[in-house]
Amino acid sequence: MENSLGKLFAITSFGESHGRCVGIIVDGCPAGLPITGEDIQREADKRKPGTSMAATKRAEEDKVEILSGTLNGMTTGAPICLLIWNRDIDSSEYEKARFLARPGHADYTAFIKYGGFNDFRGGGRFSGRITAAFVMAGAIAKKLLDTIGVEVLAHTIELGGIKAEPKELDEIKGTMEKNPFKCADLKAAEAMAKAIEKVKQEGDSVGGIIEGIALNVPAGLGEPVFDTLEGGLAKALFAIPAVKGVEFGSGFSAARKRGSENNDPFTIKNGKIVTVANNAGGILGGISNGMPLVVRVAIKPTSSIAKSQQTVDLKDMKGASLQVAGRHDVCIVPRAAVVVESMIAVTLCDFAMRAELIPRVIK
Amino acid sequence: MENSLGKLFAITSFGESHGRCVGIIVDGCPAGLPITGEDIQREADKRKPGTSMAATKRAEEDKVEILSGTLNGMTTGAPICLLIWNRDIDSSEYEKARFLARPGHADYTAFIKYGGFNDFRGGGRFSGRITAAFVMAGAIAKKLLDTIGVEVLAHTIELGGIKAEPKELDEIKGTMEKNPFKCADLKAAEAMAKAIEKVKQEGDSVGGIIEGIALNVPAGLGEPVFDTLEGGLAKALFAIPAVKGVEFGSGFSAARKRGSENNDPFTIKNGKIVTVANNAGGILGGISNGMPLVVRVAIKPTSSIAKSQQTVDLKDMKGASLQVAGRHDVCIVPRAAVVVESMIAVTLCDFAMRAELIPRVIK
Amino acid sequence: MENSLGKLFAITSFGESHGRCVGIIVDGCPAGLPITGEDIQREADKRKPGTSMAATKRAEEDKVEILSGTLNGMTTGAPICLLIWNRDIDSSEYEKARFLARPGHADYTAFIKYGGFNDFRGGGRFSGRITAAFVMAGAIAKKLLDTIGVEVLAHTIELGGIKAEPKELDEIKGTMEKNPFKCADLKAAEAMAKAIEKVKQEGDSVGGIIEGIALNVPAGLGEPVFDTLEGGLAKALFAIPAVKGVEFGSGFSAARKRGSENNDPFTIKNGKIVTVANNAGGILGGISNGMPLVVRVAIKPTSSIAKSQQTVDLKDMKGASLQVAGRHDVCIVPRAAVVVESMIAVTLCDFAMRAELIPRVIK
Amino acid sequence: MENSLGKLFAITSFGESHGRCVGIIVDGCPAGLPITGEDIQREADKRKPGTSMAATKRAEEDKVEILSGTLNGMTTGAPICLLIWNRDIDSSEYEKARFLARPGHADYTAFIKYGGFNDFRGGGRFSGRITAAFVMAGAIAKKLLDTIGVEVLAHTIELGGIKAEPKELDEIKGTMEKNPFKCADLKAAEAMAKAIEKVKQEGDSVGGIIEGIALNVPAGLGEPVFDTLEGGLAKALFAIPAVKGVEFGSGFSAARKRGSENNDPFTIKNGKIVTVANNAGGILGGISNGMPLVVRVAIKPTSSIAKSQQTVDLKDMKGASLQVAGRHDVCIVPRAAVVVESMIAVTLCDFAMRAELIPRVIK
Repeated sequence: MENSLGKLFAITSFGESHGRCVGIIVDGCPAGLPITGEDIQREADKRKPGTSMAATKRAEEDKVEILSGTLNGMTTGAPICLLIWNRDIDSSEYEKARFLARPGHADYTAFIKYGGFNDFRGGGRFSGRITAAFVMAGAIAKKLLDTIGVEVLAHTIELGGIKAEPKELDEIKGTMEKNPFKCADLKAAEAMAKAIEKVKQEGDSVGGIIEGIALNVPAGLGEPVFDTLEGGLAKALFAIPAVKGVEFGSGFSAARKRGSENNDPFTIKNGKIVTVANNAGGILGGISNGMPLVVRVAIKPTSSIAKSQQTVDLKDMKGASLQVAGRHDVCIVPRAAVVVESMIAVTLCDFAMRAELIPRVIK
Repeated sequence: MENSLGKLFAITSFGESHGRCVGIIVDGCPAGLPITGEDIQREADKRKPGTSMAATKRAEEDKVEILSGTLNGMTTGAPICLLIWNRDIDSSEYEKARFLARPGHADYTAFIKYGGFNDFRGGGRFSGRITAAFVMAGAIAKKLLDTIGVEVLAHTIELGGIKAEPKELDEIKGTMEKNPFKCADLKAAEAMAKAIEKVKQEGDSVGGIIEGIALNVPAGLGEPVFDTLEGGLAKALFAIPAVKGVEFGSGFSAARKRGSENNDPFTIKNGKIVTVANNAGGILGGISNGMPLVVRVAIKPTSSIAKSQQTVDLKDMKGASLQVAGRHDVCIVPRAAVVVESMIAVTLCDFAMRAELIPRVIK
Repeated sequence: MENSLGKLFAITSFGESHGRCVGIIVDGCPAGLPITGEDIQREADKRKPGTSMAATKRAEEDKVEILSGTLNGMTTGAPICLLIWNRDIDSSEYEKARFLARPGHADYTAFIKYGGFNDFRGGGRFSGRITAAFVMAGAIAKKLLDTIGVEVLAHTIELGGIKAEPKELDEIKGTMEKNPFKCADLKAAEAMAKAIEKVKQEGDSVGGIIEGIALNVPAGLGEPVFDTLEGGLAKALFAIPAVKGVEFGSGFSAARKRGSENNDPFTIKNGKIVTVANNAGGILGGISNGMPLVVRVAIKPTSSIAKSQQTVDLKDMKGASLQVAGRHDVCIVPRAAVVVESMIAVTLCDFAMRAELIPRVIK
Repeated sequence: MENSLGKLFAITSFGESHGRCVGIIVDGCPAGLPITGEDIQREADKRKPGTSMAATKRAEEDKVEILSGTLNGMTTGAPICLLIWNRDIDSSEYEKARFLARPGHADYTAFIKYGGFNDFRGGGRFSGRITAAFVMAGAIAKKLLDTIGVEVLAHTIELGGIKAEPKELDEIKGTMEKNPFKCADLKAAEAMAKAIEKVKQEGDSVGGIIEGIALNVPAGLGEPVFDTLEGGLAKALFAIPAVKGVEFGSGFSAARKRGSENNDPFTIKNGKIVTVANNAGGILGGISNGMPLVVRVAIKPTSSIAKSQQTVDLKDMKGASLQVAGRHDVCIVPRAAVVVESMIAVTLCDFAMRAELIPRVIK
């Protein structure tokens, strides 16, 4: 079940970058949720390359198909199979360099683990393309969360070393879609554009940091001691290729704070218990506390770069140099934002169902 | 199964801070592993308070008992139940402040989630004391990893804002046990001691960063796409109270690097494929690559502080001020190091068994 | 997790027949359920030997202890660890015949599976004594089911070849506790007593059939296609040593019926949809239909018999003859009835929670 | 994960009878197993209607497609998605009788569970057609078992009240494919043909009993105490619609035997420990003992019959009479045999992998 995630709201991933399709099964979605191909297409399109100048030129059509689990535009309670057929595939470059392990990629580890039988074309199961299917599942998860008023968003707070100024939630929501970087600080976004351009010319790549936020999360989600909300979200987020760090609330900076500074004092506001600050990122003891859930995700620079790199030929077991061909994103951060949203949404659905906060039949 | 972790090598936690005991069941440990109470006691003692000046004064005896799963000092293949009876318990302070939610603690979220029925005494299930049982499981996991040559260690690299200088692996191993902070930089350790003393006088607390390292991890551990090694380790580590961030290899700093800089070139050394650098922290595509596994964990400052804090009375739903009584660590980082080791060890055992790298009967 | 069962209401078994204890952890029980040691003791006592003449003479005290998960007589939402210390153990006979595989027992298969490291004393993990812990979990499950009006019972319908006459539910309830065989047909019970006596004198053993019934099960429990109610119950019931068959409703006799005869027609009674007959045993399509749940369990004759048997010495790999010493039940059926009840109750709790029919906090 | 089964070799089912397709994902299959569409088609064809006179006339083409998980005819270690597109669908009869709950079917329970949103057409998720996908998974499982010499077969031992004479294994293998009933007793098969013809004319249906046998199963499969081989197989077999009973070895007849009769004495044959008889059906203590695994499955008579039946209109909540239209099998037993084989094979693969008896890469 290594390709499945979740307990009550569970997803199962399948497909490869250069195989016939990428797909996902959503199992456990309550019956009675209105869901159409358009709903899912809209989300899938957010991940599309070409929406930002940072992205690959591969003309992915990514036409979503619903194979099961709905009837007359409503979920039936049965597993929902969602699929995108792969088109516009050119595996020739991968065939040529089949045994040259690309640095930063899974070529070597997959070769070892699967005895060389893994689908190496375009990274196979390890391609970022797999996350297109995560986004389809996320589309359903978001619609489900919507029934209990939970909203999930993810924006870029750092890219290629350029940090965005912290903004208020309203400004984030209003601004992040106004630039191809999903950055709420438009000035920073301009600098990011320039940085990307420069890096591109140098045949190199950059990474960044995405901040995911979930609003109106009811208090009580999370199942200590091992199925904590943080642990569940982290596991889901590390399934996104290129993620190398996950932190909640004040995160790593908490390590430099005093307890008196990092503890969020409780108070009552409009008859509701809230915290004055949100260093906890909305999670205390592994359980949501009703404040905005805040998680940050470190994205490493794209492993595929045009520059020549030192590597090893896995078949001949000798040194080699490699120049990765094909079409690649200089920075995947903007496209990854919707994937981060999706993994958060999927995880929250699972926890909300475990807490019996979503009924098994939506009315 | 929210109190269980792992698939083949699985642990189930039980017990409360001020209940009768804390315990753990290790299910799936191969038969034929030599294991004694002393083996486990030795590890449990590493978590003991009083081993460092940063720690609480509670005189925890923490005498380990093996209730099942071994015969004549060898594991039998049956579940191993390990237990520490609680002694020296004084719940009076907690009774008094029962409804005053301590900032930074799970009091409020547990109250909401369990309708006020949760064992609030000493934090109940949310107490750091629960991790004493994690360490017992870790003791078995370490012995099991030892049969395939894997070694796990965790050391303090930052505490109260003081950063340790990076050291070579040999120096880390040689030095980290020579000071109460598990810090490989003895100069930094001295500064940490002073910082702790100051913070203590101010009735405050500090956090820090622990780095976990696993050596000789065979390539091939990790099950993409959702049961990645990073995801599995992160989930396990977020089960430790106070952990608010987890990163692998270059982690969050990868966000500021170029691909050409962050990619670890492959080369051949002594007939083995290795990487020249280790920005990946030993994991590529969610699978171990044979290099040292490197994970860093952000520990927030201890939530219990002597200083007065603003809070809410959960019963009367009105504002209150709170001064947390009882005995508390000014900084849990040094004691948490062995817990980090344990969670890494437990997780690696599970993945190693899934990869069939540990036989079901040890010979 | 092979020693765990259930998804939301989950149990984890530990302990051995001649080890320190047998125990169980109940994870996922809602908070706020009143539960005392006496509640559990009462159920555990039903499994006690000596309550029927069919039973072993081992003076099992089976004093139940609650180690965690309750506070002031109420569940807290934390895992509940229940334990019985083993006393009155005499392993000498087992030491003597250690390598003589007892026919019908797990000695041989456990030896192979665990490389000879398994705890062989008294059958170790494979002893019926393990089910004492199942009954403790069942006690909690029954209390939980009680909150939604579900009642579970199990009675003997066949023993040593003697079949009880079918009785109405009221008569079963009224009569089954009036004889040591849990048989609702008192005449049959008398014949069973005689049969047992005869078999005992011959140094032999007998089996039988237990029928489990669950009343007021709400319609809608069961999660097709793989987590069906039948599949879940069967898996739970096959965990009872000596169970070799499980059938629902008309069961194996359905194979001889016509569809027109076996289909239960629907009708409306008191404004509720019911079926006129109950050949389905309360389950249609893997989901409960609101009718009484009826399951029958085949119990093989006790494997331990006084008669001499042909076997093999596992160490010397040569033929041997064996006379099983120790104290053994001539027939375990009457004692197994409460275990059947327990496994049904535990399984129904899990399914009821999955269907959101039991709240996470009991009020 | 209710539509998933298995731990290491896991299957996830999706699709509906009258939806776009039925499919299955096989997750955890080792890399390096040769597998082609033809391999799977051959198995799928065994379930085809029209292979026996007992079957429906629906012209199911059931063309198997492999969507993922193989490369150049070999498994890659990635999830294998297998799919059959639905064609020749006529849902009009179902639309007409949408709210008339067919006796013996899941119409009523699904209506309750999914609030009327379930796909009712042709039984939706509860149709026997779903098992076409089980057979595809079974095809892969059989190929995998073949690498360790395990063979699985299932034959009809009773149909419409006609019992086949017990036959030796060789005769079963040689004869069962020679008649449309998969019956090793050709004389009985003739009687079955007549019985079917008569029942058909009467607009009724019959059931039967299928015996599954697995040969060369290595000793040591099964994970007590809850993941027993019996429990695992039973759960898998109860996922087949119409199964109402499962028994192993002497099964329910063990209830009438003496211990001295039912215990299988051990002996040594060709240097191997075997049992003289096989009342245990190859399983002792939940673990395979190396003898043939024998399981019997009770199949109820087909619920869909031409005769008029009493039922209830779920919408109007009033009594009604119903004559099930459409094309239906008078008896599904012969077609179900290959499904029984498939579920046994899938389960054995999972247990064999858990026992590390199948490598993660096939060479």
